[in-house]
Amino acid sequence: MKNPSTLEELIAALRCLPGVGPKSAQRMAFHLLQRDKPGAHRLAGALSLALERIRHCEKCNSYAEEAVCTLCRSPRRDATLLCVLETPADLLMMEQAQCYQGLYFVLMGALSPLDGIGPREIHLDRLVRRATDGIVRETILATNFTVEGEATAHYVGELLRAKGIKATRIARGLPVGGELEHVDSGTLAQAVMERRDI
Amino acid sequence: MKNPSTLEELIAALRCLPGVGPKSAQRMAFHLLQRDKPGAHRLAGALSLALERIRHCEKCNSYAEEAVCTLCRSPRRDATLLCVLETPADLLMMEQAQCYQGLYFVLMGALSPLDGIGPREIHLDRLVRRATDGIVRETILATNFTVEGEATAHYVGELLRAKGIKATRIARGLPVGGELEHVDSGTLAQAVMERRDI
Repeated sequence: MKNPSTLEELIAALRCLPGVGPKSAQRMAFHLLQRDKPGAHRLAGALSLALERIRHCEKCNSYAEEAVCTLCRSPRRDATLLCVLETPADLLMMEQAQCYQGLYFVLMGALSPLDGIGPREIHLDRLVRRATDGIVRETILATNFTVEGEATAHYVGELLRAKGIKATRIARGLPVGGELEHVDSGTLAQAVMERRDI
Repeated sequence: MKNPSTLEELIAALRCLPGVGPKSAQRMAFHLLQRDKPGAHRLAGALSLALERIRHCEKCNSYAEEAVCTLCRSPRRDATLLCVLETPADLLMMEQAQCYQGLYFVLMGALSPLDGIGPREIHLDRLVRRATDGIVRETILATNFTVEGEATAHYVGELLRAKGIKATRIARGLPVGGELEHVDSGTLAQAVMERRDI
């Protein structure tokens, strides 16, 4: 036996992190033990605390420490707008872009029947209840422009429209600073198809 | 505030891992919370256990759970040979190569005066005591062929020879399967300089 089993277990446990293979896991374990024991203590504590405290916000379904998150409770947000996203990371990107003052609903995924992810798994019943609260006037579908994201936007759009809720989709087109010469033809074709008056 | 503070702290704590920047840390945190809570529990436990249990072997200075590690206690190892290495990762590589049946001493670093790493920091007093136990006949210096590793091998070699202990250095040259056309000129020059009879 070359490694003590506690070390083997630490290396194996580090591999649960995305993108960490056997070599990286070993490097991380040795780094923590040799150069950053306070960091290892901190990480162990942060993991335990996060597992204990973090749950889903009852309103927006993103991560929160309280029943309803600070963003959903904020009086400064426009409660007539509801933006539908796939993940909490997408929510962070939206907030960083500082382009939106409404509220959110995070699906925690996208429809993918082959992976067993149906309407129930992405909490569409809760989304419908949330969107039909009498205050929301428009839902903005901001799922990804992938096959799953597009299918989800289409499905959710039909569902909400059937309930009399207006549903819009974020625009597809050339990125800011994009040049026709370097953009992929699919994006260019969409940008032409979805052209608008100036 | 966009993320609950416990989540922010988890993301910050994950950045103590080598090679993990803000984006990866966020991805790791979301992955653990969304898809691998058992993995997060396991990692928190493994970290705590490792911090509590893992210490340095009294004989070889590598990681161990007991005062003297299983490798140092093994009766099947050749106690007349002592291989000197920089890190426990190097020890694992040596064992994987299955080319050596002796014992080890791990310096946990290499001499680097500019970084404040002197003879004391790499435990040379302990190495000398270990090598002069009356059983060791030869010390094999297997530090890296970097500036620090070479300086360390030179210094340790002088130190041990002064105590009457034979010190050898692992060979430098072309790697197995190496082709002259593709090898760097420094390595080729060394391979010619250190040529041997066949």
